[in-house]
Amino acid sequence: MSVIVWWLVMVVMVAVHSASAGVVELNWEVEYKLRWPDCKEGIVIAINGEFPGPTIDATAGDTVIVHVTNKLSTEGVVIHWHGIRQNGTPWADGAAGVTQCPINPGETFTYNFIVDKAGTHFYHGHYGMQRSAGLYGMMIVRSPKETLQYDGEFNLLLSDWWHQGSHAQELYLSSRPMRWIGEPQSLLINGRGQFNCSLAAYFNKGGVKECKFKDNDECAPTILRVEPLKVYRLRIASTTALASLNLAVEGHQLEVVEADGNYVAPFTVNDIDMYSGETYSVLLRTHNPTPSRKYWISVGVRGRKPNTTQALTVLHYADAPEYEHLPYPPPVTPRWDDYDRSKSFSKKIFAAKGYPPPPEKSDEQLFLLNTQNLMDKYTKWAINNVSLSVPATPYIGTIRYGLKTLNYQKPPGKEIVEDYDITKPPVNPNTTKGNGIYSFQLGRVVDVILQNSNVLNGRGSEIHPWHLHGHDFWVLGYGEGKFRLGVDEKTYNLNNPPLRNTVALYPYGWTALRFVTDNPGVWFFHCHIEPHLHMGMGVVFAEGVDQIAKMDIPNEVLGCGLTREFLMNRGRH
Amino acid sequence: MSVIVWWLVMVVMVAVHSASAGVVELNWEVEYKLRWPDCKEGIVIAINGEFPGPTIDATAGDTVIVHVTNKLSTEGVVIHWHGIRQNGTPWADGAAGVTQCPINPGETFTYNFIVDKAGTHFYHGHYGMQRSAGLYGMMIVRSPKETLQYDGEFNLLLSDWWHQGSHAQELYLSSRPMRWIGEPQSLLINGRGQFNCSLAAYFNKGGVKECKFKDNDECAPTILRVEPLKVYRLRIASTTALASLNLAVEGHQLEVVEADGNYVAPFTVNDIDMYSGETYSVLLRTHNPTPSRKYWISVGVRGRKPNTTQALTVLHYADAPEYEHLPYPPPVTPRWDDYDRSKSFSKKIFAAKGYPPPPEKSDEQLFLLNTQNLMDKYTKWAINNVSLSVPATPYIGTIRYGLKTLNYQKPPGKEIVEDYDITKPPVNPNTTKGNGIYSFQLGRVVDVILQNSNVLNGRGSEIHPWHLHGHDFWVLGYGEGKFRLGVDEKTYNLNNPPLRNTVALYPYGWTALRFVTDNPGVWFFHCHIEPHLHMGMGVVFAEGVDQIAKMDIPNEVLGCGLTREFLMNRGRH
Repeated sequence: MSVIVWWLVMVVMVAVHSASAGVVELNWEVEYKLRWPDCKEGIVIAINGEFPGPTIDATAGDTVIVHVTNKLSTEGVVIHWHGIRQNGTPWADGAAGVTQCPINPGETFTYNFIVDKAGTHFYHGHYGMQRSAGLYGMMIVRSPKETLQYDGEFNLLLSDWWHQGSHAQELYLSSRPMRWIGEPQSLLINGRGQFNCSLAAYFNKGGVKECKFKDNDECAPTILRVEPLKVYRLRIASTTALASLNLAVEGHQLEVVEADGNYVAPFTVNDIDMYSGETYSVLLRTHNPTPSRKYWISVGVRGRKPNTTQALTVLHYADAPEYEHLPYPPPVTPRWDDYDRSKSFSKKIFAAKGYPPPPEKSDEQLFLLNTQNLMDKYTKWAINNVSLSVPATPYIGTIRYGLKTLNYQKPPGKEIVEDYDITKPPVNPNTTKGNGIYSFQLGRVVDVILQNSNVLNGRGSEIHPWHLHGHDFWVLGYGEGKFRLGVDEKTYNLNNPPLRNTVALYPYGWTALRFVTDNPGVWFFHCHIEPHLHMGMGVVFAEGVDQIAKMDIPNEVLGCGLTREFLMNRGRH
Repeated sequence: MSVIVWWLVMVVMVAVHSASAGVVELNWEVEYKLRWPDCKEGIVIAINGEFPGPTIDATAGDTVIVHVTNKLSTEGVVIHWHGIRQNGTPWADGAAGVTQCPINPGETFTYNFIVDKAGTHFYHGHYGMQRSAGLYGMMIVRSPKETLQYDGEFNLLLSDWWHQGSHAQELYLSSRPMRWIGEPQSLLINGRGQFNCSLAAYFNKGGVKECKFKDNDECAPTILRVEPLKVYRLRIASTTALASLNLAVEGHQLEVVEADGNYVAPFTVNDIDMYSGETYSVLLRTHNPTPSRKYWISVGVRGRKPNTTQALTVLHYADAPEYEHLPYPPPVTPRWDDYDRSKSFSKKIFAAKGYPPPPEKSDEQLFLLNTQNLMDKYTKWAINNVSLSVPATPYIGTIRYGLKTLNYQKPPGKEIVEDYDITKPPVNPNTTKGNGIYSFQLGRVVDVILQNSNVLNGRGSEIHPWHLHGHDFWVLGYGEGKFRLGVDEKTYNLNNPPLRNTVALYPYGWTALRFVTDNPGVWFFHCHIEPHLHMGMGVVFAEGVDQIAKMDIPNEVLGCGLTREFLMNRGRH
C-alpha cells in the first residue's frame, strides 16, 4: 500500500507543478556585515546587504532559482530551504555534508527546486553555526487557491542573538571542558531587538532604560500597522539557535490555522509556544478601539530558565497617536518551566479537515534515545549513544557513487533501550562518535519514537525540537516518561494527527511521529537547537539508496572530499 | 646566460637533495583553540594544540611531508612555507587562490616538498587573515656542513596580537567606510606576551602593573638560559600582521650573519630592525657577569606610531638568582619614525663572501607604484592603480588547463608612472579591482622597482615589506623620493647585494631588486602586512607558462572554482 501512496504523492506534486510553472529567480550575495541588531553593534551574515535576508515570495508550483554567491572571506556556506521537501532535487536541500559540499568563498552555486506546496517557510544556513550568525530569512509559498480569508498579512521571523560571535560559540561548545554559551543576549523580531533598553521601560521604574531610536535605527522595531475590524494573517517562524519562545499580542486572541506549511484545524489561544524550526500562521482579528491605540506584541523565552529580556514590537491601529506610550505593560510570558502549558498547546494541534489520515500501520519502528554524554571529556549529545559527526563528503555523493568508505550500514541502532533509566544521569556517561546512517527502502511507513532523558549532571531534561528534512510527518502523540512498547502505540492519534516538519520532544517524555519514505534522497533529522546539532544531536536517513545511485546529481554539489577526488580522477588521462 | 644560471641552480638543488635525502614527515591538525597569548584569553589557530605551531627542524636536501588536516568548523586553510622556493613543486607553496585551493574543513592535504637550502624560515596561513589569527610557526633548515660556529641556539618567533578576532578585522577592513583595526594590543615572542602588565613594571612607578605568572601560564615568557662565554645563534623571524619591530638584548651586541635564509657578511649592531616576513640569525656572545645575572630582551614597534607595549623576555645566565628583579630597565626601542636609522640598518646588509654576484644586466624592468586608494568608497591598496582581487580559482590551475577566463594577459602595467606626484595624496583617489598577472618567460633577469607614495589623506607614507614567493632576490638598492629612470640604476650594488625574499620599501622612497625567472610556477609578490594584502596590495608572477601547462599538478590543489568544474566534467560520461 505504501508504494501506492508514494506514487500518488508524486502524481499530485507533478500536477501542481504543471498547473502554475512560474519562476522566481534571485541573485544573492552572502557576506558578513556590521549591523546593530539589538542596538549594539554586531557582525551578521547578510544577504545582498540585508539582515535578515530577503523574503522569498513564491506560489506553489513555482520553480525557485537562487544563485548564491559566497562572499565570506574564508568560509563555506550553504542555504537550507526549511520546509521545502525537495522531491526530485535532494541535492538542493542545502545541508552541508549531507546533501552538498559547502559553496567555496568566491564561488556561486545555483539552488533550483520546485516549491510544490503552499505554506509559511523560512531558509537558513546549515553549516557550522551560521544560523546563529544571522543567515536566515522568510520564505512564503502562496496557494493559487487560498482557502483562508484575511485582509492583510505580516511576517514575523523570530530569532535569538548573542554578542559573542558564532565562531567563538562553536569553539566554546567544542572545548574541553565544554564552555556553555549561555542564554542569548537578545531576542529579535525580524532581526530587530533591544538590548539594555526596553520599549516598555516606563512600567518598571529604576530598571532598564527606555530605548531611544532614530528613524533609521536598525534595532527599531517593525511596527505592525493595522486597520480596525479586519483579519490579519501573521506568518510566524522561529529560527532561534537555542530559545523556545512564546508570542502574545496584548488584547487579541490568535487563531492558529497553519503549522509548518500544513493547515490545521483552527483553534484560538491567547498566546502561542514556538520551538526553533516551527512555523505558524495565526489569524488576528482587529477590533475597534476608541480612541484608537497601540497594543504590545511580546516574545519571551520558555523551556529554559530565561536570562533574556522579552522582545517587543507594537500592533499599531490606524490613527493611534504615534509617540504616545502604551497604557498597559506587555503580556507576561508564561513561566518557563510550565511544561504542562506547553504540552497543552501542542496537543491542540490537529490536521485540518480534508487531510487524509496517515497509514494505519507502520512497517518499521525506530527508537531514538536522546542523551547528553561525554566523549573523551568533550560534552556531546548522542542518539542511541552515538554522537553524529557529519563527514566532509556529503552522504548523497558517497551513496551515488557507491564509495566504500561510507559507513551507512551501521546506524546508531533502532531498538528501544530497555534498561536505560531516563530519569537519572547516564550510568555510562561516555558516547562514541559516528557517521552511520539509517537506510530505508522506498514506500515504507516508518514510526520514529523520540525518547528524552535526564542530562549528564544533576536533575534536568531539555526540550529538543526535532526537524526532518525532505518530509512532513504525522505527529502521532506525546507521552510522559519512558515509552512503553506495545502499550503506548495504542494512544496514537491515527485519525487527524497534524502534519509537521518539526516537533518538540518534552523533558522526560517521548514523541512519536510517522512518515512515508516517499522521497529518494538523504535527509537530515536533527534537533533544531543549533548548539545541540553542533554537538552531535542528529541522525541521517537515506531513502531509496538504489534510486540515489542512479540520480543525475550535479557535480557542483560534490566538489569536496571523496566525491571530488573520485570525480576528478575518473577523468584523469 | 640566464638560462644557464637557471640550469645551474637546478643542478645544485638536485645535487644537494641526493646527498642527504632525509624525510621529515608530520601530521598536523589545524583548529581553533582558546589560549592566553598575552595573559588575556583569546582564540588562536593552533596546530596539534600548539600555539605557535610546532617548529619544523629539517636539513637541507630533506623532503618535508606535512599532512595538514583542517579541523576548523567552516573555514578553508592553507599553509605557506615562507622562504622555501618550491623548485619543481609550485603547487606546494600554500598561497590560496594562487597555487592551490584552500583545504576544506574535515579534509587532509599533503604538502610534499624539498627544502633545498639551509636557513631560518617560518610557515604561516595564507588565506584571509589567518596569520593574524595565529597560524604560524618556525621552520629551521640546517646545513649539513654549517660554517657558522656556535654553542647553542634559540628560536624567536615574533608576532603581534589583537583582542579583536581576525574575522572581525577582515570585516572592518572590508567595510565602507573602512574601519582601521588599530595597533596591536600586544607583541608576542614565541606566542607569549603581556597585556596590561609588564615584567619591568617596577621601573615605572604608578604605571602598568607587574605581571604575576603561575608556572604553566601561557603568557609567561620563554626564558633564554645561557652559559657564560659561549656563542648563541638566535634565529629570529617576524610573522607580524602589521608591526615593524626592533629587537635588542640589554648589554649584548648582535652579530648579524643570516638574513632570509642567506648568509650575509657579518656585522655587529646593538639592535636589529625587522619587518614582517623577514628572518635573521644573529650571534650573541655571552660574557661572564659577576655575580651572574639576567638581561632584558626587548621587542618594540617601529615605523608606525606605537600604541603597544614592548614585548619582553629574559636572557638568564646560569646561576643568576631565579626570582630577583633585573637591575636596569629594558632597552628602549628607537624612535618609531627615525627612518634614517632603519635605512642605515638595511644598508649594512651585504651578501657573505662566496655568493656569486647578480647578473650584470636585467632583461626587464618592472615599476610597481604603491598607492592607497578608494574603490567605490572602499579603501584599497593598489599597484599601478590596480588593487589585487585574488580569484576563487588558483592561477596555477587556470594556466595549467588554459582556461580562457583568466585575465593574465592584463597585468596592472609595468612602466614608470612619470606624472605621479608621490609626495601628495593621489590626484585621482580611485582605483580598480583586478586579477591580471605578470607573465615571464623562463631565464629572464627581472628588475622590480618598488615605488612608495603618500597615503590617501593627509601627509604620510608607510613602510611596506614586500615578499616574493618561490625566489630569493638581490636587493640592489634603496633610494629617496621618486626613482629617476636612467639615473638611479647607476647606484645599484651589483657587487655584493644581499639575497633576500623580503625587503622593505621605505616611506616616499624606492627599493630595487633583481631576480631570475628560474622557477616555473605562479608566485605571489605582495606586501607582507596582512591587512594591506587583504586590501589588495600584491601582484602575481607567472613564470614559464608553457612549462606550467605541462606540469603534473596534483588534482588535490585544484578542487575549487573553474578547475574543479573542468576536471570533474572532463570525466563525465
